[in-house]
Amino acid sequence: MRASVLRNGRMVYRDDVPDPVPGPGQVLVAVRACGICGSDLHFAAHGAEVAALGGQLAGGGANLDVNRDVFLGHEFTAEVLEAGPHTQTHPPGTLVTSIPVLLSAEGVEPIFSSNTTVGGYAERMLLSAPLLLPVPNGLDFKHATLTEPMAVGLHAVNKSNIEPGETALVLGCGPIGLAIIAGLALRGVKAIAASDFSPKRRELAAAMGAHQTLDPAQGSPFHAVHASVVFEAVGVPGIIDDAIRRAPTGTRLIVAGVCMQPDTVHPFFAIAKEISVQFVLAYSPEEFATSLRALADGDIDVAPLITGEVGLDGVGEAFDDLADPERHCKILVTPGGAG
Amino acid sequence: MRASVLRNGRMVYRDDVPDPVPGPGQVLVAVRACGICGSDLHFAAHGAEVAALGGQLAGGGANLDVNRDVFLGHEFTAEVLEAGPHTQTHPPGTLVTSIPVLLSAEGVEPIFSSNTTVGGYAERMLLSAPLLLPVPNGLDFKHATLTEPMAVGLHAVNKSNIEPGETALVLGCGPIGLAIIAGLALRGVKAIAASDFSPKRRELAAAMGAHQTLDPAQGSPFHAVHASVVFEAVGVPGIIDDAIRRAPTGTRLIVAGVCMQPDTVHPFFAIAKEISVQFVLAYSPEEFATSLRALADGDIDVAPLITGEVGLDGVGEAFDDLADPERHCKILVTPGGAG
Repeated sequence: MRASVLRNGRMVYRDDVPDPVPGPGQVLVAVRACGICGSDLHFAAHGAEVAALGGQLAGGGANLDVNRDVFLGHEFTAEVLEAGPHTQTHPPGTLVTSIPVLLSAEGVEPIFSSNTTVGGYAERMLLSAPLLLPVPNGLDFKHATLTEPMAVGLHAVNKSNIEPGETALVLGCGPIGLAIIAGLALRGVKAIAASDFSPKRRELAAAMGAHQTLDPAQGSPFHAVHASVVFEAVGVPGIIDDAIRRAPTGTRLIVAGVCMQPDTVHPFFAIAKEISVQFVLAYSPEEFATSLRALADGDIDVAPLITGEVGLDGVGEAFDDLADPERHCKILVTPGGAG
Repeated sequence: MRASVLRNGRMVYRDDVPDPVPGPGQVLVAVRACGICGSDLHFAAHGAEVAALGGQLAGGGANLDVNRDVFLGHEFTAEVLEAGPHTQTHPPGTLVTSIPVLLSAEGVEPIFSSNTTVGGYAERMLLSAPLLLPVPNGLDFKHATLTEPMAVGLHAVNKSNIEPGETALVLGCGPIGLAIIAGLALRGVKAIAASDFSPKRRELAAAMGAHQTLDPAQGSPFHAVHASVVFEAVGVPGIIDDAIRRAPTGTRLIVAGVCMQPDTVHPFFAIAKEISVQFVLAYSPEEFATSLRALADGDIDVAPLITGEVGLDGVGEAFDDLADPERHCKILVTPGGAG
């Protein structure tokens, strides 16, 4: 079958990937769309380091061999094709999404980066029957594809325990920052400020529900907004320390940006101001389902975020194009065409 | 009057310090005892840097001139001598303590390090009438002197929101670590583990309520204890990152150790495990009063922590002696003798 795989740091088109075969509890699906995530771009650029850090975390060697082809793609919607042996699932043709996890006899594997488990940048992939969520309300499959990044934003907001009457400041308006803004709006937060160097991204922030947008080139957002909860969605070295230095006393800092490098902080300032730092990752299955429901009910409109669409042979170029925040926010890969 | 002051990085005895004169709302007191705090030792060694960091935090220059004599001493009990003009207070001779803050017409000044406001390493000092707490129940003035460090521990425990059924791990058994252990025991936590390289400090940890003590030279305490709440009371560069790397998923890390230097962390590990880091400082007036009450009621027994006593002419040597954790934990300065 056709797929796009990471090879030597570059997404390349292949038409000779063996079709995956569903085992018990698994379902073969046809991918309708898969969103390109910033973490995919990061993995393409720094896969060896990511794999090494992941291996350290697990306390053993990394399973992943970055010198072989790597399957990526974890934001997907798909159509049910056929179930594995002894497996009940939805009828063929049902549009579904799922948290990116594959259950098998060997255990639980994240569908994120793998030499063997096919991800969403492919014609077909395997999903886990118990984890499938049918896409409800006739929700457009393209919009449903953003269930996953929107769940990341909802989760960060939930972990912050922010109250509707508090002021939130979101640093960085990439897809995660924008998902956090949507999550804050969904929670009824009345004062949402967002900062990004890109005018286009600030426009999207307003579309997702930010009440105030700020250009950090014009001065620190901490001068313009006195927020009790700050969301860090930039993920570069130095941003945590800058927030700790500038944030007011008692700030809850939610770190959603994934900084892979060692970073320098000054604990003195965090101590003197009793700042709390909550690092967040991913979401629960319930938050994923809530995200899908919010999209289907029209409570979150992700249409403005989708700025491009490519086939499996255009993934490499799309990875390059996403470097420009003025031009692109979320590009969908549609293996079967726009449909 | 007599006092011990910091001069060129060393505590020196003086007998020519002018007697402080209480203004309205202030009370002149005779210091009975003042505990030597690790932050005093740190200030003596690194006063210029501490003053510079404090100035950065305030967004202006530091008020403190480290080239002039500096008054230190913020853990004290004292006897009321006389009130300032138009000021009601307790009768002369009343044994009192107070949060280390001096109220004046100019505003609120911490009693911590100052060229002008006398601290507890002196015969007499000024306190604020509205902040005075009489020492109740005939509590020994030496024990009451530990109200302040014990309040620091209570505050750290309160900020952690730990439940009695959770497991706590305290890294570092200096006075703050030991105060945290006492605070955890007071809260009814049933599983308190504590680690320190010093056998004597581990012994004190057990005396304050630790159920398990660990020597980090024998292996990481994170291998021996699966704690949901970790208290960092060491305050040296690297310890936060080590905790982030080794702590289990979802750990709440409470940073009570004051690291003044820049520090390196790996956000990746904190993100992957959704760790939260709460930096804490000091205590509320209510927590200070609770600490005094716990000492007076016998709920916390600080007697084992008091390992030495010196006069005002022995402060310099006591600062040196505190470098040895086997020999000393808390040394009290008693300007009028042991009483």
